[in-house]
Amino acid sequence: MADKKFVEEITSMEDDFAQWYTDVVRKAELTGYTQVKGFMVIKPAGYAIWENIQRELDRRFKETGVENVYLPCLIPESLLNKEKEHVEGFAPEVAWVTYGGNQKLEERMCVRPTSETLFSDFYAKDVHSYRDLPRLYNQWCSVVRWEKTTRPFLRSREFLWQEGHTIHATAKEAEERTEQMLNLYADFLEDFLAIPVVRGQKTEKEKFAGAVATYTIEALMHDGKALQCGTSHNFGDGFARAYGIQYVDKDNTLKYVSQTSWGMTTRLIGAIIMVHGDNSGLKLPPRVAPVQAMVIPIQQKKEGVLDKAESLKNVLVAAGIRARLDDSDKSPGWKFSDQEMRGIPVRLEIGPKDIEKGQCVIVRRDTREKIVSPLEGIADKVKEVLEQIQHDMFENAKARRDAMTYEARTKEEFTEIADSKPGFIKAMWCGDVECENAIKDQLGGVTSRCIPFHQEHLSDTCVWCGRPARKMVCWGRAY
Amino acid sequence: MADKKFVEEITSMEDDFAQWYTDVVRKAELTGYTQVKGFMVIKPAGYAIWENIQRELDRRFKETGVENVYLPCLIPESLLNKEKEHVEGFAPEVAWVTYGGNQKLEERMCVRPTSETLFSDFYAKDVHSYRDLPRLYNQWCSVVRWEKTTRPFLRSREFLWQEGHTIHATAKEAEERTEQMLNLYADFLEDFLAIPVVRGQKTEKEKFAGAVATYTIEALMHDGKALQCGTSHNFGDGFARAYGIQYVDKDNTLKYVSQTSWGMTTRLIGAIIMVHGDNSGLKLPPRVAPVQAMVIPIQQKKEGVLDKAESLKNVLVAAGIRARLDDSDKSPGWKFSDQEMRGIPVRLEIGPKDIEKGQCVIVRRDTREKIVSPLEGIADKVKEVLEQIQHDMFENAKARRDAMTYEARTKEEFTEIADSKPGFIKAMWCGDVECENAIKDQLGGVTSRCIPFHQEHLSDTCVWCGRPARKMVCWGRAY
Repeated sequence: MADKKFVEEITSMEDDFAQWYTDVVRKAELTGYTQVKGFMVIKPAGYAIWENIQRELDRRFKETGVENVYLPCLIPESLLNKEKEHVEGFAPEVAWVTYGGNQKLEERMCVRPTSETLFSDFYAKDVHSYRDLPRLYNQWCSVVRWEKTTRPFLRSREFLWQEGHTIHATAKEAEERTEQMLNLYADFLEDFLAIPVVRGQKTEKEKFAGAVATYTIEALMHDGKALQCGTSHNFGDGFARAYGIQYVDKDNTLKYVSQTSWGMTTRLIGAIIMVHGDNSGLKLPPRVAPVQAMVIPIQQKKEGVLDKAESLKNVLVAAGIRARLDDSDKSPGWKFSDQEMRGIPVRLEIGPKDIEKGQCVIVRRDTREKIVSPLEGIADKVKEVLEQIQHDMFENAKARRDAMTYEARTKEEFTEIADSKPGFIKAMWCGDVECENAIKDQLGGVTSRCIPFHQEHLSDTCVWCGRPARKMVCWGRAY
Repeated sequence: MADKKFVEEITSMEDDFAQWYTDVVRKAELTGYTQVKGFMVIKPAGYAIWENIQRELDRRFKETGVENVYLPCLIPESLLNKEKEHVEGFAPEVAWVTYGGNQKLEERMCVRPTSETLFSDFYAKDVHSYRDLPRLYNQWCSVVRWEKTTRPFLRSREFLWQEGHTIHATAKEAEERTEQMLNLYADFLEDFLAIPVVRGQKTEKEKFAGAVATYTIEALMHDGKALQCGTSHNFGDGFARAYGIQYVDKDNTLKYVSQTSWGMTTRLIGAIIMVHGDNSGLKLPPRVAPVQAMVIPIQQKKEGVLDKAESLKNVLVAAGIRARLDDSDKSPGWKFSDQEMRGIPVRLEIGPKDIEKGQCVIVRRDTREKIVSPLEGIADKVKEVLEQIQHDMFENAKARRDAMTYEARTKEEFTEIADSKPGFIKAMWCGDVECENAIKDQLGGVTSRCIPFHQEHLSDTCVWCGRPARKMVCWGRAY
């Protein structure tokens, strides 16, 4: 009874997806609250996911020559104002510091919403010669943006992220780095988070304030809405000119650098929840799961059961599996629900009968399949099952995403799909922002998610205006 | 000539210790500058040291059951104000956010100078029963304190740190945790950073705002000044009462929790510089050094030399040594100076003659000893040398610290030592803050660094007032 009640506390995603999300975040203990409105507390279960994301991404960054640095958290207003498009993009949503101690500041400073301006100021002072290039710097930090409506991980007044900022001798190198990092992000989401993504370029309307080109990875959530999961920007020499980042080249002439930036955030945790979760709670891909296997003793008061369960857990840990034992005084049913709610990829049930037979029962979180396994060689078996889950979760997410991706060739088709079928819509576009604006207004918030790198020729004309088509766009409603 | 010039750019520490410090920080490329006054940029060479500190400390924390979380970076003024002593300690030095976007905030918020208030607010909402205790949370973040004069790593308007905040069912448990973390800090400094410390308790005057007891580790710098390297605070139930952190105990009564906090910061990088550095630059203990061994080819244009140097580097890396190859077009002499400036614990010189003999020359950064070693088994030899350096650097630092630690039994002795001998002074104290104040005023800033856990009985009377002594205090001038 009590077990049932525990599960029933989650709203089903079919009834109310937003409430389901909130329930999962709360019941899986990912976030908490303080009096600070619009800001989240990331609790241990949530932060451990971020630590795994961070460790793996950081490793992949460093393999490409990236180095970590740390720049100030406050930006003087005059520094923010130097790049015109950029300040217009960010000024409306920054938090302003006006007093330091008891003294009013001569110039107010904002809590960084992003650090292009600071990196530019720093590079302008620090770089002199072509020998100093490229600079491939990244920082892990928090940023503040004064959002009006907030949701844990998805939209919050503060979030954690990494922001890479690189400068290069040539425009070509900068473009290559921009694409390299976007592909690194995409591979990371697919390999590590089991989240399939569409890789593409943002339209002029949707690109980052101050960028020449913005690339993005877009994922589809369970409810058919898109989530932008990471972006990579090529700035050309715009910031370099505004901030004076110049170097003496081999030919002894002064040149402007070419610049990029790229970032991913704690929003990824929201993506994991909404791509993989179900009505029993969170479902974590094994590679990112802080706990991969939970050992749950059955009839744990019987002699020898807890000891055996403990040694089973130890065998798994020794083999490099992130395993835990739930030896609390709750019932097995409660523990199963709890493990499922927290999204732990497998549980291992072990009771007196299993011990007699020298076995345990592996239960997959994703399919609920039960696999009776001999204790002999159990660690290898669990590793195999975890790999299979990682693989299957990606394939399932991809199949669902593909099944929710539609093609529209006419305005009528486009309108009908947008009205009735949540998901991505692929359709041709003339390249005119007027069509983008009209689509957004008339189709209830459908926006261009990206111009996919992988282009298909669906028709000769723009799905909206009928003029000649220039690109296939992936459209959708987004978080 | 050019090599010499490079080294000469550092001021000698005997001439001007403060300038020597600034020179090392700059020449070893640990920090950089932006327009943001009083804030530092931590460059790759500095940040990599912090990453190693962070990784090792985090591992040690987790071994004791600590979990990481993340709390908001802004604190509403009313929340800060709830604990009276605490707010008085911090309010004069915080940065105030008064605008969010274009809107004036109803209540101003400070950028966190430390997070006791937020953790208290969070725990008050999140903890209900004795089953929820203890909570052993830590966060890695940056904090802002509006300092008037700043120096890289030592005193800056923003620094990176970890802050642990724990709550417990009993006062005894909280006290044990406070001491446990202080000892963890001390062991970390001694084992990992090769910095000997004095462990002790702060006097009432010097303890943390709001704490019942503050424990500290104090290290002695090369110039005889003390540096507080980490503190651990027992709050009793002061914050719990101010913020209402209560739980239902087993006996079904409502009780206040007991609370601790403990922190270490990027200031540790300053300690490494000032304890170990010399007139050739930085000197990093091998365990914390981002690069442990630099391979420097001699006559690198001769056939086969670069290949051999590269393969030597690869052998070291494969054995788990953090090794690099300097194959730039600079002269060997320049490379030696550069490696010494950056504090890389050993260099391996390899030239045509060495290759002929199947050997290379290991040069220790700490002693400049040259060790000719066969290439056969070189990785094991380098590991052995690195271990020896780690050991010797600690012993040397300890011997110097001990040689600069004096005992004073009378006011005259105390005054004479304070006037002429930089270092720690051990002397008995009556326990009265009046004596502390008088000593600080009359002995040019000498303060009580701590009441060492390891007490010695030097005399029966207070070194200053002659009244009965209660404790031996370790005195000194501090950063």
